[in-house]
Amino acid sequence: MLPDRAFFDLLADAAKAETLPRFRVGAHVVNKEEKGFDPVTEGDRAAEAAIRAVITERFPEHGILGEEHGSVGLDREYVWVIDPIDGTRAFISGVPVWGTLIGLYRNGRAVMGLVDQPFTGERYFSDGKQSFYSGPEGERVLSTRACAGLSDAIMFTTSPHIFVDGDRRRYEAVQDKVRLFRYGVDCYAYALLAAGHVDLVIETSLKAYDVGGLIPVIEQAGGIITDWDGGRAEMGGRVIAAGSRAVYDEAMAILRS
Amino acid sequence: MLPDRAFFDLLADAAKAETLPRFRVGAHVVNKEEKGFDPVTEGDRAAEAAIRAVITERFPEHGILGEEHGSVGLDREYVWVIDPIDGTRAFISGVPVWGTLIGLYRNGRAVMGLVDQPFTGERYFSDGKQSFYSGPEGERVLSTRACAGLSDAIMFTTSPHIFVDGDRRRYEAVQDKVRLFRYGVDCYAYALLAAGHVDLVIETSLKAYDVGGLIPVIEQAGGIITDWDGGRAEMGGRVIAAGSRAVYDEAMAILRS
Repeated sequence: MLPDRAFFDLLADAAKAETLPRFRVGAHVVNKEEKGFDPVTEGDRAAEAAIRAVITERFPEHGILGEEHGSVGLDREYVWVIDPIDGTRAFISGVPVWGTLIGLYRNGRAVMGLVDQPFTGERYFSDGKQSFYSGPEGERVLSTRACAGLSDAIMFTTSPHIFVDGDRRRYEAVQDKVRLFRYGVDCYAYALLAAGHVDLVIETSLKAYDVGGLIPVIEQAGGIITDWDGGRAEMGGRVIAAGSRAVYDEAMAILRS
Repeated sequence: MLPDRAFFDLLADAAKAETLPRFRVGAHVVNKEEKGFDPVTEGDRAAEAAIRAVITERFPEHGILGEEHGSVGLDREYVWVIDPIDGTRAFISGVPVWGTLIGLYRNGRAVMGLVDQPFTGERYFSDGKQSFYSGPEGERVLSTRACAGLSDAIMFTTSPHIFVDGDRRRYEAVQDKVRLFRYGVDCYAYALLAAGHVDLVIETSLKAYDVGGLIPVIEQAGGIITDWDGGRAEMGGRVIAAGSRAVYDEAMAILRS
């Protein structure tokens, strides 16, 4: 049986209690090594430990893949995939577009997921069938938008520097065709895509924990997320997410060329 | 006599009433021309009109330089410099790093300023002597941080694409030396600099209304903001802002080379 929304909220709240108090407290500390003060690493580790404790208490038979504290039981039916602070650079810089990502895989397929941004109070959650938003604007069911093609699309990526060689050329060929592109929003870009605000996210070199919590939120809002070869994205790597089939097909034709 | 904080709050609240209800309502609308629906332009114009109405009522003898509704009395002792929505691309994309910028110039020098982010509830304000923050973390006096040099610095710019030719090479020479650089945060980057979270912002092709509200917030928090030649930044153009003299001097040596 899948866990319910209340259980995901428990996990997100446990993480938030460790991350938010450390956000922006690094102001005025410019050299973390000298000062022995590294709030993002502390927050990352403490939040993941808090999440794992809640999972292990309730679902001791589940596996866990985390960024900070390693993996247990990856061959089990259910595996939790956790990134306590996705977007550490945003966290360090004081920009509230980092997030806590929690995904639940069943037999290797991401089935439920959550993205939480504690500073803005936004939470994006998929229950296995639908995706939901709660935040300053209230609560609603999420759906991606029916963008007709790249020339109408808003695209995000972390930075053009993440792509090298042929991947960079292919990425830039897509970028040249979109209406608007922006950099630097990490996991928040995928949440905005699920909510129908933007149309396309293209990235590379992702780990499983960078996408595990995002895949269900996007798919259950009507979006598409795969690797650049069209395969499942659960293991990360080169990832494309699109809000509509038209945008996906047009971008994939370029990425595959 | 300079207006007080309460008056700036009046202006920011009047703008917020026009901007925030239009933020993210564009979800699912991908072609604004076809649909006749352009929330960011509507919000920009309505917010500026609201701000101007409050100013004109209280200070009919002041001049106003606005992005949307033109200029009046630019030769007067006091001139208000207004950008109702700085960061329209962020606004369109659903990312809460746009802001309302309101500056007050006296004889051409920016003396008071305000940056407001309505979605997160953050407000950065300078009263002529000091800069202040109010937001989810409470209230505090702002100060930039004493970063020792570029190798410790976090830098922001809107996008590397804004720089061309020699300016691009100089910009990239700075970027190569910093600890961390990020793109795409618009006016929010300057607010984070005033708050001591980041150390350097470098941009180009700014208008007066892009910087008018920011200059006092940065200077009165202990930061430095000039054009690339070391002159005042009130008229925009190529702008550098730094939290410390050491970072400023090191970056300027490169930008001037």
